[in-house]
Amino acid sequence: MDNNEVLILTGSDSDLPKMEEAAKILKEFGVKFEMTISSAHRSPERTEELIEEAKSSGVKVIIVGAGMAAHLAGVIASRFPLPVIGVPLESGTLSGVDAFLSTLQMPPGMPVATMAINGARNAGILAVQILATSNPQLKEKLVAYKKRLAMEVEEKAVSLNKYGNK
Amino acid sequence: MDNNEVLILTGSDSDLPKMEEAAKILKEFGVKFEMTISSAHRSPERTEELIEEAKSSGVKVIIVGAGMAAHLAGVIASRFPLPVIGVPLESGTLSGVDAFLSTLQMPPGMPVATMAINGARNAGILAVQILATSNPQLKEKLVAYKKRLAMEVEEKAVSLNKYGNK
Amino acid sequence: MDNNEVLILTGSDSDLPKMEEAAKILKEFGVKFEMTISSAHRSPERTEELIEEAKSSGVKVIIVGAGMAAHLAGVIASRFPLPVIGVPLESGTLSGVDAFLSTLQMPPGMPVATMAINGARNAGILAVQILATSNPQLKEKLVAYKKRLAMEVEEKAVSLNKYGNK
Amino acid sequence: MDNNEVLILTGSDSDLPKMEEAAKILKEFGVKFEMTISSAHRSPERTEELIEEAKSSGVKVIIVGAGMAAHLAGVIASRFPLPVIGVPLESGTLSGVDAFLSTLQMPPGMPVATMAINGARNAGILAVQILATSNPQLKEKLVAYKKRLAMEVEEKAVSLNKYGNK
Amino acid sequence: MDNNEVLILTGSDSDLPKMEEAAKILKEFGVKFEMTISSAHRSPERTEELIEEAKSSGVKVIIVGAGMAAHLAGVIASRFPLPVIGVPLESGTLSGVDAFLSTLQMPPGMPVATMAINGARNAGILAVQILATSNPQLKEKLVAYKKRLAMEVEEKAVSLNKYGNK
Amino acid sequence: MDNNEVLILTGSDSDLPKMEEAAKILKEFGVKFEMTISSAHRSPERTEELIEEAKSSGVKVIIVGAGMAAHLAGVIASRFPLPVIGVPLESGTLSGVDAFLSTLQMPPGMPVATMAINGARNAGILAVQILATSNPQLKEKLVAYKKRLAMEVEEKAVSLNKYGNK
Amino acid sequence: MDNNEVLILTGSDSDLPKMEEAAKILKEFGVKFEMTISSAHRSPERTEELIEEAKSSGVKVIIVGAGMAAHLAGVIASRFPLPVIGVPLESGTLSGVDAFLSTLQMPPGMPVATMAINGARNAGILAVQILATSNPQLKEKLVAYKKRLAMEVEEKAVSLNKYGNK
Amino acid sequence: MDNNEVLILTGSDSDLPKMEEAAKILKEFGVKFEMTISSAHRSPERTEELIEEAKSSGVKVIIVGAGMAAHLAGVIASRFPLPVIGVPLESGTLSGVDAFLSTLQMPPGMPVATMAINGARNAGILAVQILATSNPQLKEKLVAYKKRLAMEVEEKAVSLNKYGNK
Repeated sequence: MDNNEVLILTGSDSDLPKMEEAAKILKEFGVKFEMTISSAHRSPERTEELIEEAKSSGVKVIIVGAGMAAHLAGVIASRFPLPVIGVPLESGTLSGVDAFLSTLQMPPGMPVATMAINGARNAGILAVQILATSNPQLKEKLVAYKKRLAMEVEEKAVSLNKYGNK
Repeated sequence: MDNNEVLILTGSDSDLPKMEEAAKILKEFGVKFEMTISSAHRSPERTEELIEEAKSSGVKVIIVGAGMAAHLAGVIASRFPLPVIGVPLESGTLSGVDAFLSTLQMPPGMPVATMAINGARNAGILAVQILATSNPQLKEKLVAYKKRLAMEVEEKAVSLNKYGNK
Repeated sequence: MDNNEVLILTGSDSDLPKMEEAAKILKEFGVKFEMTISSAHRSPERTEELIEEAKSSGVKVIIVGAGMAAHLAGVIASRFPLPVIGVPLESGTLSGVDAFLSTLQMPPGMPVATMAINGARNAGILAVQILATSNPQLKEKLVAYKKRLAMEVEEKAVSLNKYGNK
Repeated sequence: MDNNEVLILTGSDSDLPKMEEAAKILKEFGVKFEMTISSAHRSPERTEELIEEAKSSGVKVIIVGAGMAAHLAGVIASRFPLPVIGVPLESGTLSGVDAFLSTLQMPPGMPVATMAINGARNAGILAVQILATSNPQLKEKLVAYKKRLAMEVEEKAVSLNKYGNK
Repeated sequence: MDNNEVLILTGSDSDLPKMEEAAKILKEFGVKFEMTISSAHRSPERTEELIEEAKSSGVKVIIVGAGMAAHLAGVIASRFPLPVIGVPLESGTLSGVDAFLSTLQMPPGMPVATMAINGARNAGILAVQILATSNPQLKEKLVAYKKRLAMEVEEKAVSLNKYGNK
Repeated sequence: MDNNEVLILTGSDSDLPKMEEAAKILKEFGVKFEMTISSAHRSPERTEELIEEAKSSGVKVIIVGAGMAAHLAGVIASRFPLPVIGVPLESGTLSGVDAFLSTLQMPPGMPVATMAINGARNAGILAVQILATSNPQLKEKLVAYKKRLAMEVEEKAVSLNKYGNK
Repeated sequence: MDNNEVLILTGSDSDLPKMEEAAKILKEFGVKFEMTISSAHRSPERTEELIEEAKSSGVKVIIVGAGMAAHLAGVIASRFPLPVIGVPLESGTLSGVDAFLSTLQMPPGMPVATMAINGARNAGILAVQILATSNPQLKEKLVAYKKRLAMEVEEKAVSLNKYGNK
Repeated sequence: MDNNEVLILTGSDSDLPKMEEAAKILKEFGVKFEMTISSAHRSPERTEELIEEAKSSGVKVIIVGAGMAAHLAGVIASRFPLPVIGVPLESGTLSGVDAFLSTLQMPPGMPVATMAINGARNAGILAVQILATSNPQLKEKLVAYKKRLAMEVEEKAVSLNKYGNK
């Protein structure tokens, strides 16, 4: 994990595609990261090793995607002293409600910065925002990113056939 | 934990009174147990040590009470090969819904036998039922317990002033 | 039911495929079982007879799958003194929420060990865990099973193209 | 139960006060009834006996109040061929949501006429309406009852200080 | 509506197919009925006329299917003195939850006998049960119907390949 | 109702205090109104008469407060051609969720402008906003009202002990 | 926006088709309007400019469609003194529940007239009703519209094969 | 706001006490902050001014507490390029469910790091964690804080009367 500032982790390979949006944002902003899988429940030792590795190699933010009981972000938050971002993933029959309650309702002392259900892109942006608190270049890029989003709305509004009854 | 067959665990001392009902049942049925606290998030090392101790000392069932994100039962289920019973506890503003979804919606491979919200007494009874699968005396006691419950209903029905319009 | 340690029961034949996962696990672990159908509401007599048969033939655990109002596990728990495992099945329009509340919220005295919605595989594993409390061979198999799950995660992690921006 | 047309049943004596509203309505309309307790889970034999007694003695409607998993109405509906009215009672932490889903979501073939949470009074009225389908005097009383409700609204509206800004 | 004992009403023609199950049951039991549409909101006058017609022509039970805000059953219950059965229909994005709360949570004085979401068949059976309280032949048919349901379960159980590991 | 522009209606006198906030706003803005009670279910004729009276006397907006199944606003919307504002009131055990779904989920053709649970004050403001679309003085008052709200926040912020760690 | 009485706004072009129903109604009633996009979060400046433009050009009602966190209607209500109608749109995994709570639960002082999920047609009708409070011709059209809806129900009822068992 | 690294903002003074837990943590960790109020809806201009002030004075993290529709965190996230932490506050009748959905379900591009309902303490800790990504001293303090939490659990476990049946 040398030189990586962000670790993206998810409990199973089937959830990786949902987390790609976070990876895309980090690439777009030039943030070094690694993305791998480990389950809170099926591979607890591997999960612990990854946390230790992240701690010793200078990872600053861990992004975690998980569905259903979604304990992974909490397990990591219990051992990692820096920000943990949780992305509740839709899985099973409950539309992701189980996952976001498991991710959100952490007890005092162990925050998980929770995103919308399937909100991997925002997880990537929040990680960039966190790094930008000490990186003026990233901050400028974020300001530019916000402007681009606003401009895209303007452009779409213009390109639309004006609806109206004139 | 020597000779104890059941370990009752809860994440904080404030939840212990809610778990007393489980302890009462175990005493009533003459099952040896220990009851202590450890948090999945605040004391992850202690939690692991307790699991290792339980494994080596012959504990057969672990009963876990937890509220809110309620990861404790899942964390234990990930490392303990025998039955884990989860009691979702009411805590915070969501009436225990967060706790039971976190306890119930475990992924394939790691069951947690989930009880009703605040259902500590039933956790005790299920632990006895599990031990009774190889203990004919406990099984007889369970049969007697069921009969007593039925008789209590009958007695109450008799003692009630018969409601009716005769 | 002679020699069977587990009975798998579901309310209708349309639910049987969802319960196959439980059967598969029991086969994998070499646990003898029988699987049949009986409805709490449409065939109450048959349900009672099956419970009596299970009691007299030495069945140690009953796994019950049911959807919607899902009373079957509770009805069995009211008459069977050993562990009853309930699998709430998705059916109708409510994503299984009706079924898990009906299965989970049992009153004091009559526990049903509730699994995740459609969690038949975990029901099978819990049944094995219960039998393993008095069967060292099954316990060893469970330890091995847990290791295999962890190894599968490791192998998948290796086989994945390492995501990252090096 | 001789000559009683309605049986009011609830799972525990603590729920009886909530069911008094049903009894009051039946008295008001001059319908003969009996009110007693029996639990679906703790006293299944007693419950069956009561159903058999109700069947042989000419009871035409059974009103059932139950909380939490609330299987009692369904268990009765599975054995009683005439109308069963279910009153989900608030109990535990879920505001009665568990009870009404357990009462409402009955499978095809076994209806339970479900009332609002704690809606015992309406259960009494529905029982009267059912009997009134073959009893013109009861029907007249129901028409009068409806008129009285409307008149009470009128009277209250008059007695109120007219709010307004004249 | 002459000679009809039951009126089936739904708010729009698109909901009629869902209500066919009720009609089928009534035909099967030989109960005379009529089925038509009228909206609580779009055609309030027609709805009132239908209620008046039902009252004067001897209809004994009205079955109402409605989705979303689902006021139709309540509107009818406010003017019809005999039993009103409500079938909440799935419609829109909320899986029928809006419809069953609107149907179920009637205030004291105006019961609606609420069925499961889309539970039209049970509405038909409940209507038959209500008529059977004064019709011994219908009651016998209901007893036979219950037996047939139980026998169907038995037959299916036999015809299934016995699952098991012998 | 002569000269009144707004009618405030609620189903029972016990709900009137919750609706006082709407009356207060109307008084504050100098809008003439009348406030009375009528139930959709208990007094349907009175409700219809009130609607007819409102139509003929020039009422422009009807504000309706109702709890539980909360059909009153919909019933009025089905007969009144101008804006109907619905205030779902908390009542019973479901925190007002039943009331707002019954008020909100109106079918196409019959809107009810739904407010927050117990949101009577906003109902008053919306009524003023509606009248202000053709009344410049009211519009000015609304602009002033918005400014006052903003100033109150500023004043409170100043009067607060500045929290901070200087 | 000159001469337009209504502005229809939605947060993204992908939501425009859902809002077409509102536009259709306004055209049908001959109300002048404009329809465009602006996001509360991605283009806050554009949103403010549109509000200012609407204020100065005489727009009387703003209809807002938004999904998920759905802040757009509230943001507009905070700055626009006349009626704001909110249409919660289904988007993401939560069936529109997130959107309607964000739209409905506005604090005292800032009402948003909330419609059903995806209820764009009713938003159009409510806008017409609001304008009709000072426009007798529009009011007549609304009365005619209501009659047409009722007649359509009658016609459908006639054209249906009378269901029944004669 | 000079030299402050964190701004704590809440919509009304009545919510300030709930946010004190965040302030306490920041003081404990020696992080400079300011705490004030501004409403998204009642004082939108003040809110914008505070954001501009925060941007120009070097604030790195904004913590926002809000209840009900809870748009404040989203409004700030739309204009502030660095991390925004949202604390959904319990308010009204929905236990904070409205507030957390409004805070959590932000659209792509505008993350809000959402905490548990009333989770102000965790908001403070997350703010410290964010600053600690570029401040080794803060990071050490966080490691020490985690140890202290673990030790407190150990101490409580020891001080408890060992529950058990020896």
